Amino acid sequence: MASKWPELRINSERLLKDFEQLAEIGATVGGGVSRLALSNEDLAARSWFADRVEEAGLKVRDDEVGNLSGLLPAADPAAKTLMIGSHLDTVPNGGRYDGAIGVLIALECLRRINEAGIKPRCCLEAINFTDEEGTWKSLFGSNGVIGKISAADIDDALQENMPFRAALYRAGIMMEEAQNARRDPQSILGYLEVHIEQGKTLHDKGLDLGIVDRIVGRTTYNVVFYGEAAHAGTTTADERRDALQGAAAFIISAHKLVRANYPEGVVNCGHVSVKPESFNVVPAEASLRVEFRHPDTETLKEMESRLARLARDCAVDHRLRVSTERALHRAAERMSGYLVKQIECACRAEAVKCMPIASYSGHNAQIMNQMVPAGMIFLPSVGGLSHNPREFTEWRHVELGANVLLRTILQLTM
Amino acid sequence: MASKWPELRINSERLLKDFEQLAEIGATVGGGVSRLALSNEDLAARSWFADRVEEAGLKVRDDEVGNLSGLLPAADPAAKTLMIGSHLDTVPNGGRYDGAIGVLIALECLRRINEAGIKPRCCLEAINFTDEEGTWKSLFGSNGVIGKISAADIDDALQENMPFRAALYRAGIMMEEAQNARRDPQSILGYLEVHIEQGKTLHDKGLDLGIVDRIVGRTTYNVVFYGEAAHAGTTTADERRDALQGAAAFIISAHKLVRANYPEGVVNCGHVSVKPESFNVVPAEASLRVEFRHPDTETLKEMESRLARLARDCAVDHRLRVSTERALHRAAERMSGYLVKQIECACRAEAVKCMPIASYSGHNAQIMNQMVPAGMIFLPSVGGLSHNPREFTEWRHVELGANVLLRTILQLTM
Repeated sequence: MASKWPELRINSERLLKDFEQLAEIGATVGGGVSRLALSNEDLAARSWFADRVEEAGLKVRDDEVGNLSGLLPAADPAAKTLMIGSHLDTVPNGGRYDGAIGVLIALECLRRINEAGIKPRCCLEAINFTDEEGTWKSLFGSNGVIGKISAADIDDALQENMPFRAALYRAGIMMEEAQNARRDPQSILGYLEVHIEQGKTLHDKGLDLGIVDRIVGRTTYNVVFYGEAAHAGTTTADERRDALQGAAAFIISAHKLVRANYPEGVVNCGHVSVKPESFNVVPAEASLRVEFRHPDTETLKEMESRLARLARDCAVDHRLRVSTERALHRAAERMSGYLVKQIECACRAEAVKCMPIASYSGHNAQIMNQMVPAGMIFLPSVGGLSHNPREFTEWRHVELGANVLLRTILQLTM
Repeated sequence: MASKWPELRINSERLLKDFEQLAEIGATVGGGVSRLALSNEDLAARSWFADRVEEAGLKVRDDEVGNLSGLLPAADPAAKTLMIGSHLDTVPNGGRYDGAIGVLIALECLRRINEAGIKPRCCLEAINFTDEEGTWKSLFGSNGVIGKISAADIDDALQENMPFRAALYRAGIMMEEAQNARRDPQSILGYLEVHIEQGKTLHDKGLDLGIVDRIVGRTTYNVVFYGEAAHAGTTTADERRDALQGAAAFIISAHKLVRANYPEGVVNCGHVSVKPESFNVVPAEASLRVEFRHPDTETLKEMESRLARLARDCAVDHRLRVSTERALHRAAERMSGYLVKQIECACRAEAVKCMPIASYSGHNAQIMNQMVPAGMIFLPSVGGLSHNPREFTEWRHVELGANVLLRTILQLTM
């Protein structure tokens, strides 16, 4: 058998057919896809996926947080499981590749191994995780698998949680049982994921694949500057305590600070509002949402304290008060060095041009990595476009990624 | 008779009683007043004012845009009219002085002249103008008097005008007849107004009164920066076309530009919003409302072109497009030099400390000045507070302002 599998390749035509069929579920006018988590379209995609799993002679599995898998069992029922997957849900009018391609490639690898009559030492599981994009709760499914989702996460006393609960209920997910989705770490060999890069590094460098070695940590802050409402005409420049001037200075300085000191970091300010929001009143309040990312957790912490200090400095400069409140935080993750090496080895065997790369977006692999060794393969995104109907990856790169994944699986489980 | 009137003074106690009674109409918990134009409270204040006019033996007059006056007719029915007034409406939870004090002082002057048995050569009219504050349409009443309000201003085909039309109808104002509110300029001698400064120049300088020689012009722009929505994590600083960074740079630079080059000018940015307003998406659009004022019309135009150029420069610096659209414009006004001299003369006679001052807020006097000579007296605002329940003017300054106005009226009409 060992002499047989090095020649094994995925069935590219079958994978392409799957890709095209799936892209029709929730297809939008501009060539994009809307399959918001737990929507009719998402449920239709799951059902389509379950049909493909059965058609391939694999076993369908689902869990208490709605994750849906195809299983290729090992001969030994006590064997560990190698999980491979991504997500079928999308952002509104997103692209066809983000998430979907990873689930389809995982399925294709299992199908190929199964039809080649190979009996791996581990159980193989191709998994679709629920709500990666955060329509309701970002990375819901993978957090369920590592035991971080429980009924308490969706307080049913809160009016705002009603639609989420209704959507879960409709999809057959009972929050009372969510904790049972937790898997025993001892039962899992590791996790592998293929995903598009969503940036343009690989495409610009003319590479075939990226091997993710780090996933950025991310911290989000609510920053509110407080000044004093005043008449826009009769209040002199010296008298003004204009909250928006403080906020504008902070936006500019925060970008300068990160650019000058953190070449691997990024910062974004995607939300701003003022009160009382009248064109002839000096703003009394200016609220920002600031998000920053870095692939190194310690450096992320340093960015956090410098940005908070910067906010205070901008407030003082404009005679304002400022409040800063951490809204979200996800630590940076170093992917399993062992799996990085295994993927590198597969890349060499397949003669693909690759490089180690940091991921600047969050992924299920980042969550799985908190519990078991996780590895990730990036496909080049043309022009870096993502969350956009024009998202595109050349098919030859999809094929290379799938074959590198197949080889990695076989290396790990034969 | 000429020997009699130089001793004439207003009845300060009666004026104070009026002031306190009026402040109860629409009084708010924090000591402020809410008498939004055409609201029940505004209509109650008009009714109260009409009662005071009749009580004083003056004639009640109203017109087709809801302005309400007390008249002291001249012996000669063909005589011109000297109009004196301000407004009884307020902003939500505004102060007790803004507008109201000017109407009450005008009424008190007419009452005092009437009870002294003085027969002026001109008809005297104490007028309350409709909706100065712009609850519906800023300076509605005075624009009606100069013939700038017609049925076409409130297009009844537009759904958004429905509440305004309903409020007008309820107050007995028929837009079809609004044009008839226009007065013949030949019939008006001039217009005088007493108002609080709403800034703190007079108070800080320890002066009793200000004689308004100019009212600022005001231009409002909608400025929209256009960039490109992109993933907040995977898009590098160099790749970003962040509309909010352009807008923030413009806000900071606009304030610097005006401060450095236009000591008599002010700029305000009181509204900002971004699209798609997601904390993890680079803003594709940032919209600002920018308002700037200057007491000189030519300089205001120069500010306009420099700020527009600045917006283009900020767009280029951040690789954005920008659109600038003039939303509102009101030219600066030079008040009547003759009336300024008459008020100065009255100030000297009353031994009050005064100075010429530019008004940085809009007033009915600015509108009336487009048709007839207009003059304006400012009372010091303690701390410059306005549109605020804590708005306050010392009563001795109210009294001085009223007596200077009375003397000015007598100078002009005896």
